[in-house]
Amino acid sequence: MDYQKKIMDLLQGQVAPLRFDPQRGVEFIDQRKLPLEKNWIKASSYEDIYHIIRDMVVRGAPAISIAAAFGMALTFDSSLGQPDQAEVSHYRHELGRARARLASSRPTAVNLFWALDRVQEAFDAHFSKIAENVLRRADVHQFLLEEALRIWAEDIESNQAMSAFGAGYLPDGGVLTHCNAGALATGGLGTALGVIRKKFHDSGKIHVYVDETRPYLQGARLTAYELFEDGIPITLISDNMAAMVMSQGKVQAVVVGADRIAANGDTANKIGTMGVAILANHFHIPFYVAAPLATFDLQTFSGREIPIEERASRELTHIQDRPFTAEYPVYNPGFDVTPSSLISAIFTEQGVIEKPSRESVAHFFAKIMKSVPQS
Amino acid sequence: MDYQKKIMDLLQGQVAPLRFDPQRGVEFIDQRKLPLEKNWIKASSYEDIYHIIRDMVVRGAPAISIAAAFGMALTFDSSLGQPDQAEVSHYRHELGRARARLASSRPTAVNLFWALDRVQEAFDAHFSKIAENVLRRADVHQFLLEEALRIWAEDIESNQAMSAFGAGYLPDGGVLTHCNAGALATGGLGTALGVIRKKFHDSGKIHVYVDETRPYLQGARLTAYELFEDGIPITLISDNMAAMVMSQGKVQAVVVGADRIAANGDTANKIGTMGVAILANHFHIPFYVAAPLATFDLQTFSGREIPIEERASRELTHIQDRPFTAEYPVYNPGFDVTPSSLISAIFTEQGVIEKPSRESVAHFFAKIMKSVPQS
Repeated sequence: MDYQKKIMDLLQGQVAPLRFDPQRGVEFIDQRKLPLEKNWIKASSYEDIYHIIRDMVVRGAPAISIAAAFGMALTFDSSLGQPDQAEVSHYRHELGRARARLASSRPTAVNLFWALDRVQEAFDAHFSKIAENVLRRADVHQFLLEEALRIWAEDIESNQAMSAFGAGYLPDGGVLTHCNAGALATGGLGTALGVIRKKFHDSGKIHVYVDETRPYLQGARLTAYELFEDGIPITLISDNMAAMVMSQGKVQAVVVGADRIAANGDTANKIGTMGVAILANHFHIPFYVAAPLATFDLQTFSGREIPIEERASRELTHIQDRPFTAEYPVYNPGFDVTPSSLISAIFTEQGVIEKPSRESVAHFFAKIMKSVPQS
Repeated sequence: MDYQKKIMDLLQGQVAPLRFDPQRGVEFIDQRKLPLEKNWIKASSYEDIYHIIRDMVVRGAPAISIAAAFGMALTFDSSLGQPDQAEVSHYRHELGRARARLASSRPTAVNLFWALDRVQEAFDAHFSKIAENVLRRADVHQFLLEEALRIWAEDIESNQAMSAFGAGYLPDGGVLTHCNAGALATGGLGTALGVIRKKFHDSGKIHVYVDETRPYLQGARLTAYELFEDGIPITLISDNMAAMVMSQGKVQAVVVGADRIAANGDTANKIGTMGVAILANHFHIPFYVAAPLATFDLQTFSGREIPIEERASRELTHIQDRPFTAEYPVYNPGFDVTPSSLISAIFTEQGVIEKPSRESVAHFFAKIMKSVPQS
């Protein structure tokens, strides 16, 4: 299947964090500079991908996982020389080294490990089917690349399905979002912003209040950028204005993404999400989470057990490497955990979990398992 | 009375937004540059004061009112030449011009008008007592300056009284504050930060969580600066981390200032205050307001009638004149209104209004009126 063409068809020219063609290879838009500069950075090796992830050229769990898959493919160059006579174990060793390096780029993103596993499995499956085990490096590159493209295409399709489920829940009017759960955080379309894009496409009657999302300003820089580029009406606000616009009746729903969802529905997401949920609850505004099934961590009993990354204090005292205040003592947690009691529903690619709780999450997964053909 | 000495005694070397001595005159610390630069700007005329207020060298309603009083005094230079033979009406005309100019500097600050009135009354009272009405410009300058110093001293004393009332309400532990209701916003000591200073002085057992207060960052720049300078332990957080620190049990009380309080106790204050009040309410944390009686506007029935200033969109897209995102559509209200139902108590220089409401506010003012000797 031509996954490259499929991805082009799915995206239809909309914003995405990466682009690929066989001649130019894979390139990533530098999200650290958006929207003031639009620079594409080419990746030619897994080491390039390691830096692209670690230095936050690309961020967002699904987008990171796609980048990592490309990193695995780039372990092998596309030289068309003589077939390598070495053992499979030689290739396997090379891939193992790349995998370890890529795994260390952002160790908190669960999806990253999942993507590395997927490409490893493709590698293993391929070699188990070939008797002589003699392949040119270009051939290995090619079938791993195919797997990376497949992961990318599936991610967009998953967001499409999630968005179709979620859009029906959004009333006409204002919707508030926090951080960037958008095209730039995924393969395209986005999770929370996918739902918003679908609603805009279906009814056109939507206005998005974009929390700027301190300290890293993903809302002001990335969400504002990609919605504005797609012609969706937005108003940028600082995080502490959310209560104000809600009290004025400007917001009919909130929709955000998720970094990790525990077995009871407690949801870790960008710092500030819990505050928005409490405000929405106070004003009787529904609060929705949009996230792929891969975000659920059913081994984690509740939000209390989700570890919270603490980030550099510099993020609270500097913008674009320039200080705006002195280096005072700072607390800078990257995420917070919204209790499931404050969440109206979770949109996934397989359906919607209304009033998430230990029971409703378990029930939902039991239903999915039954409907999936066992392989 | 030597008000200059009195002010020095009251401040005891603590942070204040202005300083005065008869030789150097009056100078203001440039709050736009704090804490990275500490520049003092000298005011030699009412026009200087106009710019100092308008350009936000000084901000905070009480501090603005003190600056405006100095502006009135600076209408007249301190030349010791021959007594001016002109009519009182000549001086009166000059003062009227200065007053109109100063009144137009920040038209929303109610205290500003109150201070202009106070100096005008001092002028009127003085001339009504002098038969010949022939005074040197230096004499007029001197007695208006006296009134400005008196207003300044009274403001610090008022904050002292308010702080003594409020500090008893703060338990040992964490307290969260928003914006800068501090020494820099007043003549010294501060309202909300006055309460915090008093608590620190009395028990030492306090840790202050400082909301950075987007978009103008008064918390990160001014509150952090003045508490740190005074040796009070602080942690700077972004506004959207307030829910997180509350959920972790780190905050035992919230105390903020006020820009205007309606007859039913609804309180306009820096944007984001209402959100903090809703969060405090959610976590069963008491939410206190510290404000002088001059902040009450009993002619305003409820918060709905308080006009909200909308500020430049640039504040949401630039920091220190440098853009960090594109010029997207922005909403930038300067204030919000916290309903009195979310306020545990209001601390004033005359006592505390617990559970503020139309009834309790009316009752409080009735009691004060009785205790004040009628002049």
